Amino acid sequence: MAQVKPSIPKGTRDFSPVEMAKRNYIFNTIKDVYALFGYQQIETPSMENLSTLMGKYGEEGDKLLFKILDSGNFLSDVKPEELTEGGTPKLAARICEKGLRYDLTVPFARFVTMHRDELTFPFKRYQIQPVWRADRPQKGRYREFFQCDADVVGSDSLLNEVEICQMIDEVFHRFGINVAIKMNNRKILAGIAEILGAPELLVDITVAIDKFDKIGIDNVNKELAEKGLNEAQIAQLQPIILLQGSNVEKLATLKNVLAASETGVKGVEELEYILAKVEKLGGTRCQLDIDLTLARGLNYYTGAIFEVKALDTEMGSITGGGRYDNLTGVFGMPGVSGVGISFGADRIYDVLNTLNLYPTETLQSTQVLFVTFGQDEQDFALPLLAQLRKAGIRAEVYPEAGAKMKKQMGYANAKQIPYVVIIGSEEMETGMVSLKNMITGEQNKINANEIVNQF
Amino acid sequence: MAQVKPSIPKGTRDFSPVEMAKRNYIFNTIKDVYALFGYQQIETPSMENLSTLMGKYGEEGDKLLFKILDSGNFLSDVKPEELTEGGTPKLAARICEKGLRYDLTVPFARFVTMHRDELTFPFKRYQIQPVWRADRPQKGRYREFFQCDADVVGSDSLLNEVEICQMIDEVFHRFGINVAIKMNNRKILAGIAEILGAPELLVDITVAIDKFDKIGIDNVNKELAEKGLNEAQIAQLQPIILLQGSNVEKLATLKNVLAASETGVKGVEELEYILAKVEKLGGTRCQLDIDLTLARGLNYYTGAIFEVKALDTEMGSITGGGRYDNLTGVFGMPGVSGVGISFGADRIYDVLNTLNLYPTETLQSTQVLFVTFGQDEQDFALPLLAQLRKAGIRAEVYPEAGAKMKKQMGYANAKQIPYVVIIGSEEMETGMVSLKNMITGEQNKINANEIVNQF
Repeated sequence: MAQVKPSIPKGTRDFSPVEMAKRNYIFNTIKDVYALFGYQQIETPSMENLSTLMGKYGEEGDKLLFKILDSGNFLSDVKPEELTEGGTPKLAARICEKGLRYDLTVPFARFVTMHRDELTFPFKRYQIQPVWRADRPQKGRYREFFQCDADVVGSDSLLNEVEICQMIDEVFHRFGINVAIKMNNRKILAGIAEILGAPELLVDITVAIDKFDKIGIDNVNKELAEKGLNEAQIAQLQPIILLQGSNVEKLATLKNVLAASETGVKGVEELEYILAKVEKLGGTRCQLDIDLTLARGLNYYTGAIFEVKALDTEMGSITGGGRYDNLTGVFGMPGVSGVGISFGADRIYDVLNTLNLYPTETLQSTQVLFVTFGQDEQDFALPLLAQLRKAGIRAEVYPEAGAKMKKQMGYANAKQIPYVVIIGSEEMETGMVSLKNMITGEQNKINANEIVNQF
Repeated sequence: MAQVKPSIPKGTRDFSPVEMAKRNYIFNTIKDVYALFGYQQIETPSMENLSTLMGKYGEEGDKLLFKILDSGNFLSDVKPEELTEGGTPKLAARICEKGLRYDLTVPFARFVTMHRDELTFPFKRYQIQPVWRADRPQKGRYREFFQCDADVVGSDSLLNEVEICQMIDEVFHRFGINVAIKMNNRKILAGIAEILGAPELLVDITVAIDKFDKIGIDNVNKELAEKGLNEAQIAQLQPIILLQGSNVEKLATLKNVLAASETGVKGVEELEYILAKVEKLGGTRCQLDIDLTLARGLNYYTGAIFEVKALDTEMGSITGGGRYDNLTGVFGMPGVSGVGISFGADRIYDVLNTLNLYPTETLQSTQVLFVTFGQDEQDFALPLLAQLRKAGIRAEVYPEAGAKMKKQMGYANAKQIPYVVIIGSEEMETGMVSLKNMITGEQNKINANEIVNQF
């Protein structure tokens, strides 16, 4: 059989030990903070029934679902005439019952509905698992990638939004990444559309406002006119486009402009409550800015909208979330509202790499390697190795007794092992072994019996 | 649209917070021990090219692979005449380029081959990821389950086998599960077949020997005769079937019986070396037994064979492994030998459940809940909550201020939160809050300012 050079499917990745150490650092940091705030982990199967997934992500999303071919004779129920139109989505649905998870939100909604009788609400869950999308792979976009979601469902309290700000602040403080949390509220956007009488132009308006910094007020107004806003509407929008100052100042302006919209005022009050509460509890170490151009998940979010941007590197949004009204309605369980966030692990990984922010100890695997000159020396090393491991120190001995020194030291270097204990005949005789610090190059003799105390 | 009660594909599972806590305890224990011995984590994609997977698990295995339907028009290259034979494996291969990982060994072999130039050998890796098999689901057998593998490749040293015994011992010691490690060596089995001149009967022989305890020597001999062994062969086998005593005694008998087989003697010597070395390094806390009936992976393993059985509950093998000669040959990279083990996480989970061996603290998520009687009380609680979290204590406040006491306490019970801090108007006035131990029911007043010191 001809052997093909093995490869992996496009858009997927292998993770080497160093990459895994970095990824584990990211996931563990996020997990620890989620747990600190009372969120509990769940996991759902990689495969869901296609009936659970289809129709939840729009037509485009349906196309991007990876479908799993039914086992056995997958055509047994398919009539010949169904095969005449080629490999259509319709035929795919006839030969595939299952698909791979596209995100963590729909499986979570399915989970809450299925287990409603076992769950106690409010239910605070986090979930860190891979998702799959048959997207065209490109830089930073993969067909298999991890999402790190936390949601609390069954609670309308704005305290949850306050804590989400605190969690974001804590996570990025631990990472050492300088970020700004951008906040908006869907009700404010709805209020703006309401006072203008132009709900259908909501997205156009936010896009135009977003360009103010780059193209200036005249060009923004021109663009709004092209989108169909009349002079009166554009005039009404001016204080919103020009919105500046502190969060408190922005809130005051918004209250004024949106006074005629009950929904708009409600949105301003929610935002005000959250910001004031965060402030009262000591504030965040990162910036916390009102940003009306934030329009993510407009079909989905009904209250607060969050987005996080890294300030010291170009990298779009690295975390996002918001409040929704009806998570599980599509599965026949109405009235479940909630609020959630999702940390973008792959982008955070890139930011940490760019800024070189990984704490050294998180990248260390083995702490000590015993390098020995032969079988007797290896035998001498083994009880010392056992002592170190018993003390919880990650340690190993080069397994081939008597391998060349260069090879053994190369192994230590490749694994970035910080300490090497060298054992030759002299060391065996005197009981004093050589301890080499592989970073500084420093080498000392230490008493073999006291080796545990060195680490 | 009619709403169907949502479900998950058969053979798959949701994991609730409690189940996740238990599973994380298992995975983390195994990870810690692997790392202690110098193994480093890698991960590979869930999907592999079917060209990587097919033909590696036998014909039956090929059928059990979950195949992923190609995106877009999956029939575009398929001619009408190819559709006339129904949903055959051949047609499946034409419309599916990718499949889900069936185990961790083949992806690891693919990984080693692909990354050979970046890796330093010996390469000690561990990998804990789900695998998928389109098996008929039944009790204890799932279509998605986790494997926990560690392998060292590129080292012939028997020290690796010694350390595998130590790792198994350490893992089950940490779990508190009473186990026996069973060891065999493929070369001993080959030696037995060699001296009998009946290599094709190897499996029949081990199966018959295995029945000795249950059916007695006469019935075993009868069965061997039925399988085609002649009287002389059966006579030669007697010391092996009746093999008893300590490991040292068994080794002596085997050396004697297998003296004429170079391979057999080599196998005995390997086993002897491993057992002696383990003993010299302090031995294992668990039993370590030679067991010639151990015949797992006969098509695969070439040296040591390991299997672990739980002693206090009925549960087949819960861990297994062995040495192999040629991991990556099928991918065009010859000469890579190694040895590995795999912990059966699902079975270990069942054993820990049956014996109720989970340490309490591993199942605890939130440590403290603040229960408050209204908005003012919640506001009073929030800075205390922040103090606890700052000290690393997992804590939360019931988010709906003024929810019924019963509801809040029910929340604490459902989440098995061990401590509740109760705050009413009296507590706010005096600054002395009520701390209730939810396990003992004991309740004390403590100074709110000293709350952190309580935990």
